[in-house]
Amino acid sequence: MHAHEEWYPGHLRELTEQECRELLADQRVGRVAWTDADGPVILTVNYRFVEGQVLFRTSPHSELARHFSPGRAAFQIDYADEFLQSGWSVLVRGRAELLEWDELPADEDRPTPWVEGTRNVYVRITPDRITGRRVLPV
Amino acid sequence: MHAHEEWYPGHLRELTEQECRELLADQRVGRVAWTDADGPVILTVNYRFVEGQVLFRTSPHSELARHFSPGRAAFQIDYADEFLQSGWSVLVRGRAELLEWDELPADEDRPTPWVEGTRNVYVRITPDRITGRRVLPV
Repeated sequence: MHAHEEWYPGHLRELTEQECRELLADQRVGRVAWTDADGPVILTVNYRFVEGQVLFRTSPHSELARHFSPGRAAFQIDYADEFLQSGWSVLVRGRAELLEWDELPADEDRPTPWVEGTRNVYVRITPDRITGRRVLPV
Repeated sequence: MHAHEEWYPGHLRELTEQECRELLADQRVGRVAWTDADGPVILTVNYRFVEGQVLFRTSPHSELARHFSPGRAAFQIDYADEFLQSGWSVLVRGRAELLEWDELPADEDRPTPWVEGTRNVYVRITPDRITGRRVLPV
């Protein structure tokens, strides 16, 4: 770490886990990645970060739900300012599993899908590692 | 497909492959996912979509470069309008491999990293499937 990192254009700074958790709590749209027989897949989802866990919903007819098995997953949020060529990203690595109805959080803590139709499959990712980084503006 | 899908709030529409390719050519920031021994990983990168292939750069010291082996990868771009609760996403699934120097495209077609330091490892993803979808505004 340089003493005056803010003076270096395009400098990359690691975020603390606390900063990452605050960003996760602030945002509502992120991306989940899992691996199927054909390699990794990325899906954009509405999510909530509740009690240290990532929660999102999907349709029972989605590819994710139809082929779901509990296992390793990644979840990511980012922000990019193309004009300033700066931004940040947060990566959660952990384990994904389906949530039972009696494990659901209170209504106000549930993610709100943007898409019509039944999205009653809840997936939870329990992080075992949360990392992030920020690119400072040029 | 409904005859008047625009009347359905939050309706999900599949993008054609041509629409996906145009979005890929327009954008400069996306996310790559690959699988390491610990499951899937997502990384935000500057990229270019040149001659039907996704091209991005990384540092030789990055986790991606240090543990790289050619294999399955996903690449994703998206746009979300939280006010309108609408947006789109494009997913590329394919095979990632390192690019040799003599395979590099012309200077103007190379991705420009936002971050200082040497980023002379070029990774190419050759798509075998490109899909996308759009959530129409409420």
